[in-house]
Amino acid sequence: MISEKTVERLSLYRRILCQLRAEGRESILSHELAALLHGKAAQVRRDFMQLGYSGVPNSGYNVRRLIESISDLLDSPRMQGAALVGLGHLGLAILSHFSGRWRQLAIRAAFDTDPAKVNRTHHGCRCYAMDDLAPVVREQNIDIGVIAVPAEQAQGVAEALCRAGISGILNFAPVRLRLPDTVYVDTVDLTMSLEKVAYFARQRVSARHQANTAV
Amino acid sequence: MISEKTVERLSLYRRILCQLRAEGRESILSHELAALLHGKAAQVRRDFMQLGYSGVPNSGYNVRRLIESISDLLDSPRMQGAALVGLGHLGLAILSHFSGRWRQLAIRAAFDTDPAKVNRTHHGCRCYAMDDLAPVVREQNIDIGVIAVPAEQAQGVAEALCRAGISGILNFAPVRLRLPDTVYVDTVDLTMSLEKVAYFARQRVSARHQANTAV
Repeated sequence: MISEKTVERLSLYRRILCQLRAEGRESILSHELAALLHGKAAQVRRDFMQLGYSGVPNSGYNVRRLIESISDLLDSPRMQGAALVGLGHLGLAILSHFSGRWRQLAIRAAFDTDPAKVNRTHHGCRCYAMDDLAPVVREQNIDIGVIAVPAEQAQGVAEALCRAGISGILNFAPVRLRLPDTVYVDTVDLTMSLEKVAYFARQRVSARHQANTAV
Repeated sequence: MISEKTVERLSLYRRILCQLRAEGRESILSHELAALLHGKAAQVRRDFMQLGYSGVPNSGYNVRRLIESISDLLDSPRMQGAALVGLGHLGLAILSHFSGRWRQLAIRAAFDTDPAKVNRTHHGCRCYAMDDLAPVVREQNIDIGVIAVPAEQAQGVAEALCRAGISGILNFAPVRLRLPDTVYVDTVDLTMSLEKVAYFARQRVSARHQANTAV
């Protein structure tokens, strides 16, 4: 069983390796990759050992084969489908961010309560009425739900997604969802992220003032 | 020095405590709060000891005083200002998410290259041309930058924000920013989040299939 932290790092490695491949790089050493990620070379090597792929001493890892090894683990052997609920600014931003980006993962359907949005195509994705959630999720073999509705609607939407049979949720609403363990949930918490940056920004400002005073 | 993980948890505790206060709750035990967060009671108590606030045995923590203690740590004694760069769907979603939400933290200015957006107010926030970044950041005493531009523009925007004097960045672009240590950076990585949910959703599906086969 691979941990959440390892999966996060593998996703990052792959993004960076794809950039390097596009720039013509053929091989990379663990400490170079670690430096690009502000991480440790030993961690990089441990992660790749979990993939069953080891580099060649001195010449390092082959970039193309490393991308393939990571993709074998991260990507589904079949196409995996996601449903997006909520087509406000955030939902549209998510659609345009992910639209056409992957071979193995796609947002196949969007859902909203606004009649002006329903039965139309947004960034290449069809929007359905909320009542169609269960049949569309089943017909299109969707197993991931993305929640981009206001906080007070999120728990209800999450439960509807679970009843429709999805097994993973990416939640953007600022609430903790209460769901059975059979569904994997990750919350992208914008408020927490901004509060954290605000806190540590203040610490940096204080540190600078102290350094100036010391001089 | 309080760790990033502790700051994240304090932000979450406060959100939950504010909900509880709104529902009329006056006190809470550490294990109740831990259960709401899928965490451990000992961790909750350690976190609150760092705030210098301890509960009363058997009756627990006073909800109102706990919120005040967390706010004393997380919130700035003066108003803290943020600048948002990029007013696409994501930027507008961020503005509407944060608009008017806090007393102590506000997005004071937005920036975009689109002339149709510049010199107008969006969700109560004025949009300026990119050329005005440095003077506006200085005049409005802004110390946080929020980056919601496409990947290929993010590094340039981050450097411009640093030159303007900000000390913390919340980055939504799918790139690792290379910046001096004097600036705190957090990246909200949508691609990584969705890849992680997709991976663990597949594991849950496999587990269900195995359970069904076993029966």
